Amino acid sequence: MKSLDIHSNIHDYKVFFHENLDFIGKLVEQSNRIFVMDRNIYNLYARYFERIDLNDIFLLDATEENKTLKSVEQIYAFLATKDSKRNTTLVSIGGGITQDITGFATSTVYRGIRWIFIPTTFLSQADSCIGSKTSLNFENYKNIIGGFYPPHEIYVAPEFLNTLSEKDYYSGIGEVIKFALLKEEPRKNYSELIEKIDNLKQRKNILNTIHETMEIKSAYIKIDEFDTGKRNLFNYGHCFGHALENSSHYEVPHGIAVTIGMIYANIVSLGRGLVSRHIFDLLNNDLLLPSVFMKLEATCFDFDILLNSMKNDKKRVGANLTIIIPSSDNIEAIKVDDLSEGEFGRCLDLLLDTLGLKS
Amino acid sequence: MKSLDIHSNIHDYKVFFHENLDFIGKLVEQSNRIFVMDRNIYNLYARYFERIDLNDIFLLDATEENKTLKSVEQIYAFLATKDSKRNTTLVSIGGGITQDITGFATSTVYRGIRWIFIPTTFLSQADSCIGSKTSLNFENYKNIIGGFYPPHEIYVAPEFLNTLSEKDYYSGIGEVIKFALLKEEPRKNYSELIEKIDNLKQRKNILNTIHETMEIKSAYIKIDEFDTGKRNLFNYGHCFGHALENSSHYEVPHGIAVTIGMIYANIVSLGRGLVSRHIFDLLNNDLLLPSVFMKLEATCFDFDILLNSMKNDKKRVGANLTIIIPSSDNIEAIKVDDLSEGEFGRCLDLLLDTLGLKS
Repeated sequence: MKSLDIHSNIHDYKVFFHENLDFIGKLVEQSNRIFVMDRNIYNLYARYFERIDLNDIFLLDATEENKTLKSVEQIYAFLATKDSKRNTTLVSIGGGITQDITGFATSTVYRGIRWIFIPTTFLSQADSCIGSKTSLNFENYKNIIGGFYPPHEIYVAPEFLNTLSEKDYYSGIGEVIKFALLKEEPRKNYSELIEKIDNLKQRKNILNTIHETMEIKSAYIKIDEFDTGKRNLFNYGHCFGHALENSSHYEVPHGIAVTIGMIYANIVSLGRGLVSRHIFDLLNNDLLLPSVFMKLEATCFDFDILLNSMKNDKKRVGANLTIIIPSSDNIEAIKVDDLSEGEFGRCLDLLLDTLGLKS
Repeated sequence: MKSLDIHSNIHDYKVFFHENLDFIGKLVEQSNRIFVMDRNIYNLYARYFERIDLNDIFLLDATEENKTLKSVEQIYAFLATKDSKRNTTLVSIGGGITQDITGFATSTVYRGIRWIFIPTTFLSQADSCIGSKTSLNFENYKNIIGGFYPPHEIYVAPEFLNTLSEKDYYSGIGEVIKFALLKEEPRKNYSELIEKIDNLKQRKNILNTIHETMEIKSAYIKIDEFDTGKRNLFNYGHCFGHALENSSHYEVPHGIAVTIGMIYANIVSLGRGLVSRHIFDLLNNDLLLPSVFMKLEATCFDFDILLNSMKNDKKRVGANLTIIIPSSDNIEAIKVDDLSEGEFGRCLDLLLDTLGLKS
């Protein structure tokens, strides 16, 4: 069985990789554990949870609307009824929303209790489960509440991906590509990466690919867990990607928005003469465009909403826009703060052309 | 000007010591700062805050009832109206309750914003302002919510203690004695300590004494910030002290309850033959008893409530009670988990006798 040790300033932790779901039986046997699960996962995998007392299971409706302190308070109340108090282990099972709610709850009750997380979506398995971040919405503000608290143990089982929708499965691939491109090594082997992504599309070699992705991410976390420097390169594809999520009213899922955001960032980079035409074509045409697994509508790209979202990016520092772009053919990402509205618009035109959405 | 550097796993920070309140002027001039203040402090020291736009001040009614997520959410809402977002510096001014509410808020908004804390009570200046802990009440559960997040800068000015009630001033002395006794050195100089406490009673040498107290505390925090080992010795005087706070319905303030808790712990230690009669008399009769600055009623010591509170101590692990006691004449504190109900009752009798409350 593969595993990965991750260093954190809060507490070190470990990721275990499993080919099947038999490990759940062992977790059920632990003492002082309670479960918080995405209701859908509970229904889909009920047979694995038969031996758990229903009083020890809290079911979450894991929607964006419920990603609030109110859900966290319901978990506090559930925990407060248990005898074990600070000796409690909370086992949470679900995707990113379940992770955000239970991560915030476990980090803030009894000054931090033991937390085991079992991510069930591709995005949460390959990306969000490590890195310590928790996020909650507050009133109309998305993700403004949250802190840093990693699980103590993470169990990754691609078996869960079998019940994921096509759209959600493909959404995970965007972040896998991003981390592969951010990997720091003398030369990137793009043809190997294209083959790896092809395998993922055919649902092959998922476990190993997730393991590799985490290794790349954990190297960055090790030096900048609290996101004060180098970790902001994780936002490659995200500056435009978040704007597109807004502009499409979340019709374009996160991972696919990130893929399109990387295409956009590469267009900016090509325009500035940083990346060569050869590598640009390889990345955008051979790797990224084939990974946009959905039919896009031109209406998803509203100039005003896109521009306004870019302006509201919390990484923005000056009068112009901020974006992470490749600085060379080796995709050494850099943050630039001088994207003018004019350049933004010209690159958007080129993007729509690339996506075949030019009217 | 004295200062003290403190290492934390979250972020290193610095304590500045000031003889007067002129430093407030400099804080007011900083950009992107907002203030959260105990309403009483604002009223008492209004002249120092005249130059602050009222829209940049949030006034707290710093009561135990308000030490909840609701107050924290009011601060989130206040912060969300500001342009500066994650560049905001929150300056909070008040005692332990103000610290708890603003520490939780700053640690959980935008994944942690810059926080400057100005403690205004003796307890918060000498003890709680360092050490990173935040605590909130939830429903009927006291202090079950909270985490670890230190301020980025702390400004300690004993000038604020001039407007503190006698009872609250003396309450701070208990924790000063505790840390002096926990100081790790070959031999403790008890007569020097007794003199130091005498000076404090006469409001002399406060700033230096707070500085020394923090140096002792910070040495422990350095090795056990997250309270998984040695830091639990800070609970010397607290196991019985918390029980007494409950039993007296908070008539006995925290620091005085801790002083009485240390007297109680020493009685247990003497009974077990760990501390000698000579040192016991020196500690209990010459140092601690004269530091119980209030008239006590026998009704504050309800056997059932005291026992029940000791049973609910979150440090308790087995069937018996847990207490921190001196293991030798050098007051090397140790945690013992084998205090039976019988021994608890016998020592309580001896305590009441010591306090002159034996009926």
